[in-house]
Parts: sequence; structure tokens; C-alpha cells
Amino acid sequence: MEKVRIIEVKESIFADNDREAERIRLQLKQEKKFLLNLMSSPGSGKTTTLIRTIEALKDEFRIGVMEADIESSVDAEKIAATGVKTIQIHTGGMCHLDAGMTEQGLKELGTEDLDLVILENVGNLVCPAEFDTGAVKNAMILSVPEGHDKPLKYPLIFTVCDVLIINKIDVLPYFDFDLEKVREYAQMRNPNLKIFPVSAKTGEGMDDWNSWLRQQVNDWIQ
Amino acid sequence: MEKVRIIEVKESIFADNDREAERIRLQLKQEKKFLLNLMSSPGSGKTTTLIRTIEALKDEFRIGVMEADIESSVDAEKIAATGVKTIQIHTGGMCHLDAGMTEQGLKELGTEDLDLVILENVGNLVCPAEFDTGAVKNAMILSVPEGHDKPLKYPLIFTVCDVLIINKIDVLPYFDFDLEKVREYAQMRNPNLKIFPVSAKTGEGMDDWNSWLRQQVNDWIQ
Repeated sequence: MEKVRIIEVKESIFADNDREAERIRLQLKQEKKFLLNLMSSPGSGKTTTLIRTIEALKDEFRIGVMEADIESSVDAEKIAATGVKTIQIHTGGMCHLDAGMTEQGLKELGTEDLDLVILENVGNLVCPAEFDTGAVKNAMILSVPEGHDKPLKYPLIFTVCDVLIINKIDVLPYFDFDLEKVREYAQMRNPNLKIFPVSAKTGEGMDDWNSWLRQQVNDWIQ
Repeated sequence: MEKVRIIEVKESIFADNDREAERIRLQLKQEKKFLLNLMSSPGSGKTTTLIRTIEALKDEFRIGVMEADIESSVDAEKIAATGVKTIQIHTGGMCHLDAGMTEQGLKELGTEDLDLVILENVGNLVCPAEFDTGAVKNAMILSVPEGHDKPLKYPLIFTVCDVLIINKIDVLPYFDFDLEKVREYAQMRNPNLKIFPVSAKTGEGMDDWNSWLRQQVNDWIQ
């Protein structure tokens, strides 16, 4: 397998990240490209979920992936194996991507032949939520073993996301995780949050999430 | 139950965090107080592990706990229920504590009647690893559902910790988690890392970790 290309991004110089993010989003709209920003804690299953989603949608959309990590390329190699265009972004220790860093990634990836770009953000529930990357939609994954109290403890990420994917529902019997409570807590933070309980491992629930994403991309790029 | 006292800490003004941390550590040594900095991802079981450890050691040491969170007090209330002196530190959005913030916490907690202070850092594998808090020892928890590749992806935290607690071993049969691989990857980062596989839920393995901590505290405060 060809080695995944690695790019090092620098914290951007823009004073106003929100304005920069808005500019990126407008340009994506003009060029008919959809950018999804996927966030979560380390180990919640972002990469496995992403691989399932790529498999479901790759015949409909031309997909590209930007894998952001502190320094490793473990995930990017797994994603590249699906056959989609992939780059690894190294943040050089930074705990998140901002709009300028995302734009550097988009340029390096090359979006001219893509419909859907997915940014797998750094595994972290705190910092990525503070920076608008310019994505059209923000999704987060919370996995069952992390506990249903997370919307109480990390409110901002639940507020800024359009979608909450609850992953690893195949292990629900082995954890004290209350699906109804997490819905209640998360929607307290964000009444418009769409919630998809899934198991990326078994595939359960993935159709609903993939359908939602398909609809969003079609609405944006039409 | 009495409400846990909440303090808001500000990012410290010290340019040289390492020097500040060293000063705190020296003062702890003079005053015969042990400070443990406990780090992990959200949802790895820091609070449950801590409650077990408090139960095991509270007859031997006078224990105090500083719970650091972005804004909630969920964990501090659980810890306070064990009967040990507890404060909740709110970081006001910050993803970590530095030495100055830790010192503000120690002052508010009041350490004159304590032997062992435990700082439960913000749930995050990235930022807390970058800041020496002045703790005598650093411990981290990685839980089985997070996956054995984490030392490859978040190297710094494995490098700066003295101890790696591998939590939730009760669910090993339900996850693709290789205990030998995680040992190998973690010790690649840090050959001196002590590793304790435990289940805070069932209590399995907790004796070894508690014994190690007991020994460290006794060596420091004697």
C-alpha cells in the first residue's frame, strides 16, 4: 500500500477564526463541496465509523478524508485502504484544527475531484469544539463505554454539533449507560441535535446515519 | 449532602511553568504532602478508580481531592460522598491545569490537614500532558474500549506519566484490545512506565495499584 502523504499544519495567523471559517464555507458552497467535521474522544471509534460510511457512500460521492492527529498516521493508513483519497494532517502537538489549518489541509488534499470531504479531527472533547473549521456540518461520536454523563461535563461540543452518533451500542449490556439519559442531557444542550445510536462494528444503526449524511450532501451540492 | 465548593481558576501568569511546578513540588516535600496528578480521556473511569483508591487508603492517609472540569460538578459530588475533603475546580473552558492553577486549587482546598492530595485533571489525552502541575507523580488511565493503539497516537502523555492504569479489564472479552500490544507500545514511549491492569468496577487488580501508591506516599512524606 502506498504511504499516506503527511502534511504539517501551522496554527493560522487569522485573528478572526469565525470569519475565516465562514469564508471557507462560502467557497465550499460555490464549488459544490461538502465538508464534514467529525469529532470525539480518543477511542470512540471515529475511524471505524468513517470506514463504514465510506463503504456505504463511495459509489454515490467522490470522497476525500483528512485525518488530523498529533503525530501518528495509524488512522490515515486504515482509511487509505478503503481506496478514497486521504491525507494525514499533523498538528505538531496542537489539540485541534482551526479554520486556517483546515484550509491548508483542503489545499493539500485537492478538492477539485471530490464531492464530500471528511475531516477526522484530533481525538479530544474540549478544544476542537472551540474552533469553527469551516465545515458545513459538525458531527461527534460518543461511545457507550464513555458514559451517559458526558453532555453534562463537556457541554460545548454537544452545543456546536449537528449530529451525535452514539457508537458501540453492541456493548450496551456490559455498561451502565442509559440511552434515554444521554438523549435528555444532550438535547438539554442542543434541542436540534440529531441522535443516531449505532454499532460501527456490527453495522447496526449505520443506515440511518448514512442516509442523513447522504441527504445533507445532496442538499448542499445540488 | 453538602454542596461541593467550586472555585474558578485562571490561567497562570507565570512564563516558566516548569520552574513554577518545581517550586510547588519542593514545597510539597517540605510540608510532607504528596500530590498525584491523574489524567485520562473522558469516560475512562477516573472517578470510579479514584473512589476505590480512596476507600482503600483513607484509613492510612488524610486524603483530599481536587476535581478539575470545564464547568460541571458531577464528579466532585461523587467523590465528596466518600467523606474526603473535595473541591471542584472549574477551568472556564481551559483543557488542562498548569502549575499556577494547581497551586490556586491547593490553597483553596487547604492542605494543612492532608497527607495525600489527588488532582483529577480535565478529561483529555493531549493538553494536560503538556503542563507539569507540580505533582509528585503522574498517573494516567487508559480503558479497554479506547483501544490498544493509543500510545502510538497520543505519545506525550505516556512519556510524562509514571503509571499507566489499564481500566475496564472486565470487558476485555468484548473488545479487540491486546494487553501485550499496549504494554509494548506504551513502554516504547516510556520504558520506566509501571502498568496496572484493573477493573475499578469489580475491584480486580486494584490492590497492586493501591499498594504502589501507598509506597510512593510513604516514601515521600516520611
